[in-house]
Amino acid sequence: MRIALDTMGGDNAPEETLSGALLAVEKGWLKPEEILLVGPLERIQNWLREKGMESSTFSFEAPEMVSAGSFPILEANQVVAMDDAPIQALRQKPQSSLRLGFESIRRGFAGAIVSAGNTGAVVAHAVTLLKSLKGVRRPGIAVTIEGEAGPFTVIDVGANIQPKPVHLLHYGIMGSCLSQEAHGVDQPRVGLLNIGGEAGKGNTLAKEVQGLFQETDLNFKGNIEGQEVFLGVCDVIVTEGFVGNVLLKLSEGLSTHLLHVVQEELAKAGVSKETMKEALSAIWRRVDYSEYGGALLLGVEGVVTICHGRSDRRAISNAIGLAKRATELEIARKISERIAKNSEISSEKEPKS
Amino acid sequence: MRIALDTMGGDNAPEETLSGALLAVEKGWLKPEEILLVGPLERIQNWLREKGMESSTFSFEAPEMVSAGSFPILEANQVVAMDDAPIQALRQKPQSSLRLGFESIRRGFAGAIVSAGNTGAVVAHAVTLLKSLKGVRRPGIAVTIEGEAGPFTVIDVGANIQPKPVHLLHYGIMGSCLSQEAHGVDQPRVGLLNIGGEAGKGNTLAKEVQGLFQETDLNFKGNIEGQEVFLGVCDVIVTEGFVGNVLLKLSEGLSTHLLHVVQEELAKAGVSKETMKEALSAIWRRVDYSEYGGALLLGVEGVVTICHGRSDRRAISNAIGLAKRATELEIARKISERIAKNSEISSEKEPKS
Repeated sequence: MRIALDTMGGDNAPEETLSGALLAVEKGWLKPEEILLVGPLERIQNWLREKGMESSTFSFEAPEMVSAGSFPILEANQVVAMDDAPIQALRQKPQSSLRLGFESIRRGFAGAIVSAGNTGAVVAHAVTLLKSLKGVRRPGIAVTIEGEAGPFTVIDVGANIQPKPVHLLHYGIMGSCLSQEAHGVDQPRVGLLNIGGEAGKGNTLAKEVQGLFQETDLNFKGNIEGQEVFLGVCDVIVTEGFVGNVLLKLSEGLSTHLLHVVQEELAKAGVSKETMKEALSAIWRRVDYSEYGGALLLGVEGVVTICHGRSDRRAISNAIGLAKRATELEIARKISERIAKNSEISSEKEPKS
Repeated sequence: MRIALDTMGGDNAPEETLSGALLAVEKGWLKPEEILLVGPLERIQNWLREKGMESSTFSFEAPEMVSAGSFPILEANQVVAMDDAPIQALRQKPQSSLRLGFESIRRGFAGAIVSAGNTGAVVAHAVTLLKSLKGVRRPGIAVTIEGEAGPFTVIDVGANIQPKPVHLLHYGIMGSCLSQEAHGVDQPRVGLLNIGGEAGKGNTLAKEVQGLFQETDLNFKGNIEGQEVFLGVCDVIVTEGFVGNVLLKLSEGLSTHLLHVVQEELAKAGVSKETMKEALSAIWRRVDYSEYGGALLLGVEGVVTICHGRSDRRAISNAIGLAKRATELEIARKISERIAKNSEISSEKEPKS
């Protein structure tokens, strides 16, 4: 199984994306021929040569030309910028590294893509170029975060800004599958992010979704409030894309701010620089989301891994590792089965949109 | 000017609410006769007697009976529970400490109320019993938080779950007045919490509001994303009640979680218990929202201060101090003036709702 890497996606591309591919190989997670480097041919060839690595050119017409031990390169001469409008990028950049990465999945040459580029563009390409999983109305982005009691998954963090109730229902099912398969949680506790604990709280969307969830075979725990998100109350937290996006980014900003405060107060309390450095880097490792390698866009055929724009080589290598694991675990197939089992709930309640 | 205290509101009532009143007096912020204790008469009398304090009974019929140096008590024999439905509490508990606190404002015997009780019930009572400020369509809850570059204000954190664009516009104006008057910021930078930095991003509500803000006399900075909230980019952050509520509670939960992580890693790095205790309590003081004493419900005649349900005496005393300051600063009058100055924007865009 091959993983396509959008080498030009992200703030530090292609240096960090290519270094991430190399790191994934050095860690023994994948062979070079399993990572399809999508981007500017010569630049990638030169970079690999400098590192003493082999490369082969890959084309959709002659895919059998890749030799063992060498990185296949799929030439792509356009770049989707971080601030490109997603739909325009899709229409006006048919030769972008992102687009050709998705094409390699669509044509069956790769099972997964990893990109640290423009998230909106990744979602637009996925929705347009990949098939939806049977029964899933809208894909959602699932991100895994380390909390007080281990990892938990938040879905959706920004693919779907104005979702319908059935979309959130599917996010609960998909998140539950991910938690079960990828994190080994037996009966993942699913919670709906809301502004009060009691049933009947929240906006119209939240109120409607509570009823739908109660009919599923999920281990639905009802509402979860903001202060509980990090405290290990649920394994899967379902929310609309707008709120999930704020949640994810706020967590990042607040962690940064708090660690500044910690640093200042430790210095005042006379803790030595060496001790502080040791403690802070240990703390940072535990709150750094790139440890989990990125977010997964669930609900389409193929594994789509979205990394933070600021990703460094370690984050990219972790994302490649995640993409490989998600492919092997066949999460997409398991989601389809679970959606089918609960299909009456989704179809009875609302006309297809 | 008298401040009504809902002595039975909150998880630790009335012990901590009464202690908070006492603390505010001990700190010299107010005289006892300026704090109207609303709650069970005998219980409060006994409590005050044990502390060696004087009390007088207060009634709407004979308000002149309060003697200097003694706490006036307004008898209230019902309690609004934390999980009471707001509208039902309003209808079925006419003798609650919360209701009679609001009645004392409505009848002109107090200028402010402080409550650590059921937030939804506080909002419902305020909206029903107090007049709206002229031109303001819906009140919003403003909370002040300490960030990387000093205090900033988030409005709304839960009064208005499904707001219209004009409501958010008014939140921006009210938050800006608060920032200017209470925190001395000259031209408060106002940002709209959104999921992208560029104009035109976000859900329908966010898109419509961006246009409205550009027509105001505010120092509008456009969109602000989650990761920037704590980093000092804006003095006022405008958002819908659902998102603001999640933001506020998430910040609380994440801070708790991160400080646990910090504690564990400092112990591993060999930092002594004493040093750690010193540093952690200094850190906690800087991230503890009760330092600012509570949130203000802006948009009604009279000062309404809402405290966290878990408030201790220090938080209550700070809230009483905040209520006094807000009353003296005449924030309500200044909001009315500012709303009037921008009234064409609000009235042209949307019919009164």
